[in-house]
Amino acid sequence: MSADRSSTDARGAPGWLQLGPRTLPPPQGASDVVRDSVAASVPADRKHVGPVPATVEEWLAFVAAADAPAIAGAQALEAALPVTVERDEIAGVDVYHVVPDEISPAHDEHLFVHVHGGAYVLNGGPACVSEALLLAAGVGIRAVSIDYRMPPVHPYPTPVDDVVAVYQELLKRHRARSMVMGGSSAGGGLTMLAVQRLLGEGMRVPGALFVGTPGSDLSGIGDSIRLNQDVDRSIPEYGGLVEAMAKLFADGLELTDPRISPLYGDFDGFPPTLLASGVRDILLSNTVRTHTRLLEAGTEAELIVFEGMSHADFMIEFSSPEHQLLLAQFDRFCVRHLQGSTRKPPGGPDRVDSLRWA
Amino acid sequence: MSADRSSTDARGAPGWLQLGPRTLPPPQGASDVVRDSVAASVPADRKHVGPVPATVEEWLAFVAAADAPAIAGAQALEAALPVTVERDEIAGVDVYHVVPDEISPAHDEHLFVHVHGGAYVLNGGPACVSEALLLAAGVGIRAVSIDYRMPPVHPYPTPVDDVVAVYQELLKRHRARSMVMGGSSAGGGLTMLAVQRLLGEGMRVPGALFVGTPGSDLSGIGDSIRLNQDVDRSIPEYGGLVEAMAKLFADGLELTDPRISPLYGDFDGFPPTLLASGVRDILLSNTVRTHTRLLEAGTEAELIVFEGMSHADFMIEFSSPEHQLLLAQFDRFCVRHLQGSTRKPPGGPDRVDSLRWA
Repeated sequence: MSADRSSTDARGAPGWLQLGPRTLPPPQGASDVVRDSVAASVPADRKHVGPVPATVEEWLAFVAAADAPAIAGAQALEAALPVTVERDEIAGVDVYHVVPDEISPAHDEHLFVHVHGGAYVLNGGPACVSEALLLAAGVGIRAVSIDYRMPPVHPYPTPVDDVVAVYQELLKRHRARSMVMGGSSAGGGLTMLAVQRLLGEGMRVPGALFVGTPGSDLSGIGDSIRLNQDVDRSIPEYGGLVEAMAKLFADGLELTDPRISPLYGDFDGFPPTLLASGVRDILLSNTVRTHTRLLEAGTEAELIVFEGMSHADFMIEFSSPEHQLLLAQFDRFCVRHLQGSTRKPPGGPDRVDSLRWA
Repeated sequence: MSADRSSTDARGAPGWLQLGPRTLPPPQGASDVVRDSVAASVPADRKHVGPVPATVEEWLAFVAAADAPAIAGAQALEAALPVTVERDEIAGVDVYHVVPDEISPAHDEHLFVHVHGGAYVLNGGPACVSEALLLAAGVGIRAVSIDYRMPPVHPYPTPVDDVVAVYQELLKRHRARSMVMGGSSAGGGLTMLAVQRLLGEGMRVPGALFVGTPGSDLSGIGDSIRLNQDVDRSIPEYGGLVEAMAKLFADGLELTDPRISPLYGDFDGFPPTLLASGVRDILLSNTVRTHTRLLEAGTEAELIVFEGMSHADFMIEFSSPEHQLLLAQFDRFCVRHLQGSTRKPPGGPDRVDSLRWA
């Protein structure tokens, strides 16, 4: 882990803090669901750590092993939620149409263009839809989940190309301002890379974005990468396997290249953006730095940070009140900012208990 | 520190994380101003730690010693900023009128009712105005800073009584919806206690609130209290002296009593609220828990978290771009939510560089 190496070199360097050991109880300030889940998962199996595959074949075997439970999880969600999933192809890219049994009248003209996470390498194929299922069923909005091609076979720029190609095709059938694009982790990073590409080429951008705990800076900078090391239960350390996947995506480009890490790119003209993270999230710093960059650029950007939550827990803990709150905020944000909303944007957000799916 | 004692008792308890030592470099992801300031202040003198005064006389001596540099700081700010400060009395409570040389046309009908911080014990008298000076001069809004009476002589409920009394008197001259109330740390906690009191008594509440890194839960619960121990340069630990000041305020009430910790109270009916914190803030968890409670209650609540920033650094580092961004957001938030705004609420926030005071 390059960040750790420099940390070792800099021990005692001016301004560096040397922090002693500490204990951290389950989060009493989170919901009971999250507190109990965190308590039960510690010290659970650490994900996204382990030996780095050395060849394309080893990478493909690693991906297949990691994706198997993700596919099972997506299938279980599809069975449990009132949605229909249909595989299709748009602009030559595999996609999944996700249609809730009940479309909210507010979102009848809206479309959620979903960009899945998975460190730019994982969650391809039928695993890609989980977040789209939760958001589509949760607020009653149609979704298209993009199964963009990924490393090791298809590194940068293919994942971004695929997202942009699908969006451009969707633009022929949907007004830009009626679409919300987004996703979590790598999905948040790719969403912003795609929007920066669209803006750079003078194209219309979606009416709103959802960016969860984004891969906005893949270079390892950020207070939370140190403070939440071994705290975040999804990504216990940034570096090693996670950094290797980022480098696989970057395909030789620097990790601070704005084509790879959108935080180093331009945010002028970004549409309204909803961001989410957690106090235990190793990418909390990534998230808040993205949020303040968006505010500086004049974007209407809203941030939610959940107590006790690790990377993407707001989607993983989908039976929690925290997830319900995020659904309510996503719903309100889309109603406020997308064209074709049939509900008047409320003075305040809808109540959480007004959601149909709970 | 009670939290530390329970931590010791629970070492090895199920679900508790045992975290090893770690290093933390100056925040590369913050502005240069903040990064350099953090680097220079580490390991600076730790504030709010030391022996707990044992008698009223010792408390008063402690307060006098701590307030002396705060008063000098407020006087330096007053001299440097284009504002006039005038001492007055409203409803029998000492206040300071803060009038910027140039009132923004957008805020000509608005008033910022400032409730200062200082752990419920410190920053009384002429020290109370610093935050009011920065916000009033920064956005061109008139302010009244309330020099509420404090422990050890005047514990709960006097500080809340004083804030409510001043606000009620101001209500005779100002529409409720033309006023924004708020402050940081204890000021954020007292603001919410006052609003809960007003709502409980069926009175009109301000049109908007600013709540910076609030003392919303004084009981020591929160991930950030452990994660940011010895990281936060303003409050390196929650407990000891800080907890003693909270208990001095509570005057025998439990620290989880909703009369002391507003997080345990009711948020129904709260006006739009802007919250701010930092990734290194020991009260980050307090802040985000307050934010999600407000969202759950249907309040339009906006959160900003700054990379690299400790407790209240967004006010302490007043020459930083982060502070400028907070001013811009405070300005936009007031324009959007207060009655009598002459500027049309913008689709997005104003650009930071549009501020007159920089």
